[in-house]
Amino acid sequence: MTFTLAQISQFINGVVEGNPDTIITDLAEIQHAEDGELTFLSNPKYSKYIATTHASAILVAKDFGGEFKNLIRVTDPYFAFSQLIPRFRPPIVPPNPGINPSATIDESVVLGKECYIGPNVIIESDCTIGDHVILLGNSYVGQKSEIGENSFIFPNVSIYHRCKIGANARIHSGTVIGSDGYGFVRTETGISKIPQEGGVEIGDDVEIGANCSIDRGTLRNTVIGKGTKLDNFIQIAHNVKVGEYCFMAAMSGIAGSTRVGNYVTIAAQVGIAGHLNIGDGVIVAAQSGITKDVGPNVIMFGSPAQDQHTARREIANTRSIPDIKERIKNLEKDLELLKRGK
Amino acid sequence: MTFTLAQISQFINGVVEGNPDTIITDLAEIQHAEDGELTFLSNPKYSKYIATTHASAILVAKDFGGEFKNLIRVTDPYFAFSQLIPRFRPPIVPPNPGINPSATIDESVVLGKECYIGPNVIIESDCTIGDHVILLGNSYVGQKSEIGENSFIFPNVSIYHRCKIGANARIHSGTVIGSDGYGFVRTETGISKIPQEGGVEIGDDVEIGANCSIDRGTLRNTVIGKGTKLDNFIQIAHNVKVGEYCFMAAMSGIAGSTRVGNYVTIAAQVGIAGHLNIGDGVIVAAQSGITKDVGPNVIMFGSPAQDQHTARREIANTRSIPDIKERIKNLEKDLELLKRGK
Amino acid sequence: MTFTLAQISQFINGVVEGNPDTIITDLAEIQHAEDGELTFLSNPKYSKYIATTHASAILVAKDFGGEFKNLIRVTDPYFAFSQLIPRFRPPIVPPNPGINPSATIDESVVLGKECYIGPNVIIESDCTIGDHVILLGNSYVGQKSEIGENSFIFPNVSIYHRCKIGANARIHSGTVIGSDGYGFVRTETGISKIPQEGGVEIGDDVEIGANCSIDRGTLRNTVIGKGTKLDNFIQIAHNVKVGEYCFMAAMSGIAGSTRVGNYVTIAAQVGIAGHLNIGDGVIVAAQSGITKDVGPNVIMFGSPAQDQHTARREIANTRSIPDIKERIKNLEKDLELLKRGK
Repeated sequence: MTFTLAQISQFINGVVEGNPDTIITDLAEIQHAEDGELTFLSNPKYSKYIATTHASAILVAKDFGGEFKNLIRVTDPYFAFSQLIPRFRPPIVPPNPGINPSATIDESVVLGKECYIGPNVIIESDCTIGDHVILLGNSYVGQKSEIGENSFIFPNVSIYHRCKIGANARIHSGTVIGSDGYGFVRTETGISKIPQEGGVEIGDDVEIGANCSIDRGTLRNTVIGKGTKLDNFIQIAHNVKVGEYCFMAAMSGIAGSTRVGNYVTIAAQVGIAGHLNIGDGVIVAAQSGITKDVGPNVIMFGSPAQDQHTARREIANTRSIPDIKERIKNLEKDLELLKRGK
Repeated sequence: MTFTLAQISQFINGVVEGNPDTIITDLAEIQHAEDGELTFLSNPKYSKYIATTHASAILVAKDFGGEFKNLIRVTDPYFAFSQLIPRFRPPIVPPNPGINPSATIDESVVLGKECYIGPNVIIESDCTIGDHVILLGNSYVGQKSEIGENSFIFPNVSIYHRCKIGANARIHSGTVIGSDGYGFVRTETGISKIPQEGGVEIGDDVEIGANCSIDRGTLRNTVIGKGTKLDNFIQIAHNVKVGEYCFMAAMSGIAGSTRVGNYVTIAAQVGIAGHLNIGDGVIVAAQSGITKDVGPNVIMFGSPAQDQHTARREIANTRSIPDIKERIKNLEKDLELLKRGK
Repeated sequence: MTFTLAQISQFINGVVEGNPDTIITDLAEIQHAEDGELTFLSNPKYSKYIATTHASAILVAKDFGGEFKNLIRVTDPYFAFSQLIPRFRPPIVPPNPGINPSATIDESVVLGKECYIGPNVIIESDCTIGDHVILLGNSYVGQKSEIGENSFIFPNVSIYHRCKIGANARIHSGTVIGSDGYGFVRTETGISKIPQEGGVEIGDDVEIGANCSIDRGTLRNTVIGKGTKLDNFIQIAHNVKVGEYCFMAAMSGIAGSTRVGNYVTIAAQVGIAGHLNIGDGVIVAAQSGITKDVGPNVIMFGSPAQDQHTARREIANTRSIPDIKERIKNLEKDLELLKRGK
């Protein structure tokens, strides 16, 4: 597809500076963009590429102060750019509604309108599948589970029994929802298992990446709130409650019975211990380990984690030890001189 | 289901204090419990809820000193509570024995009595499946593997060739057993693969969570001892030997050829380097990195890990640097005064 | 199989010292080897076992200075040993070419010569599968993807649409290739998804362990270079480019848009932040967190990571704090005495 800058500007409600008839043939990141391509500038780290990019035009913020031959000014350049992607790179067409004959669907299942159920999909008894749900091949849905309308389940997903997925969910391959919580007690003769008889409840508009594990609760449900987005390899233990519109980046985990507020951002490879309360709006830096309750809107860092100011000061302190040693050596020398001078 | 306190007390060998005719309709955690519900007190962190819980009765330890209208005293309140779960929350009925016609089972497979083999399960040649084994849909068992009696394999599990799973095992979805150990040598022309021709041996009564990977050995078997319980996302590299009745919490990994003793507890997000010996009864705190052999019953903490006393003292030391700087500043000031006074 | 030392020496181009007629019945690690077995010595940590091993012969380096009844001297003992494994432990015979009738292969798929397509494998429209490819049961290949000749795909692998796998690749179970990159923008009404319409490109001779996730790019491809070997649980985010002949050990992740050079070695449980450049030949120690660009051939360590010398000095500095406190106490005491002496 090709568009003029003027057309593109209309799609995203922007203002052109330069030649509105410039032809745009594709999108690209600023460091890779070629003649005819449109790029964007959002992360200031990339401003250095303005001088060298071969792009024909750049999407920039309204207050952008630099110069370039063709600009489109918008409120949020990254968001605007993302809105253009489907115009230039049409997504794969989803499969037509229908049930592949190799799927195994219990006769008690209530199946919505215009669903696609792929090859070898298994849906056990007493499940409810909403309208327009897509279940790609080789996925499994256990007894008495529900999937809300318009949800898209990629291949090889395992949803255990008594789990409830909301509408418009998107669940990637390899993810497991409803596996047993990790609950055991040591006894005199070995180890006894705590039955895990709660379920899992995933809100509307949730996206779950590849190879995640969301364990079922012991008595109640493990809960992922509306609009929350999980990256790959996320571990959610039993009885955890994650709030709405949270981010969790790859390889992070939350231990049992912890509650995470709304609008929380958890970076990659983070661990949060069990039985904690994490306030709304908290941000946790990558590789941190949270061991205590965290109040709202605090930025946490380190393992064990502290608020970011304390943690960064501690790193600076550690790095000042050579200076400390130097000062002590000088003190020792001076004191020795003083003593001798007596 | 509903029971009186007196009935419940009999189920778990407890002693009622209060009204034995109190009707109990469900179980709940202490902070969520409502009228008619029974709860328990085990973690002291939760004692604060005694004053506010709406529960009708609490399971407490024999030496519990607090007050509540109805109590049942038992040896281990958490364990007793767990024993009651199936009375109030009956588990999903397992599928009836039988072989789904869509399963692909090689004719050489020896299948025990009253197994359930779900849709699309694949069992390759020369496998032996014990009595009462349940293999839910879409799982795979490679050539010459064995699964012991009463084992329960959830959907989408991959068991490679020449792996041996004991009796009463429970293996959750997404788990891979017998993938190649990570063994390569750099050569002049690139990288050469070390063939991985050992197998995997999983003892009786082992539970393995979702999305774990247990690699096959190079020459001998990778071994998980009897009764050990693995959480989700556990990485066990080639030639590792984990002992009996160990715990490994989520996202922990053990590198190649390390031996872990019996009754070891490994918390979440731990890494243990290769070629080490970890003694019986060792406890490793979350996010630790073990780089050296560890003697029996030591508690390890930190990355690189040290015994817990040393590691915690080190954290305290680091946090005392501001005080150290203050003292140095005072020394410098005093010394300057002294010098000038001369 | 049994061979004489003389025969074995010929297989690996070595030089026998001792009795060339010694019969070798199997291979073993030095600490486990029994009479009749051949072992090797590569890691110096294991030299202590020379005194006690029951092995009949040892593969050693050309300059080995110790003594043992029978030796074979070779250039690289570990590599030579690995070359012998198939002689003593014949690998499982791969399945004969053929298409299992339960596979679902779109009629538009171009299938090479002598492929094996296992039970319940799904290959969507417009895919190209090279000659001699093996796809074991329950794997999935999305629309318009390609798999190069001789590649071996284990069960329960998910390859999304528009992904390209090179020749001689080996991909283990549970791995997901082409899942959406984790790209979202917070908006006034919630969170908006950035479409992820690039693909994934895996070079020739790449091995990918179990339960890995390699996300598709936003506009361009996420790339894994020729000959690179990934262990289990590897997270490769969108737009990442990993070079050729790299190692990545288990549970490591690379965040979006980072470029990793050639011949890089990343140990286990490492995190590398997004938008970074990691030079050729870099080595990253286990559990490190890389937050800045790294020049070629640097060894990095710690979280946040520094070059290994700085990082190790910092650990030593931290461990010297008790000594620092002692010296300050002495200074304070001496100064007090001096003051009083005035």
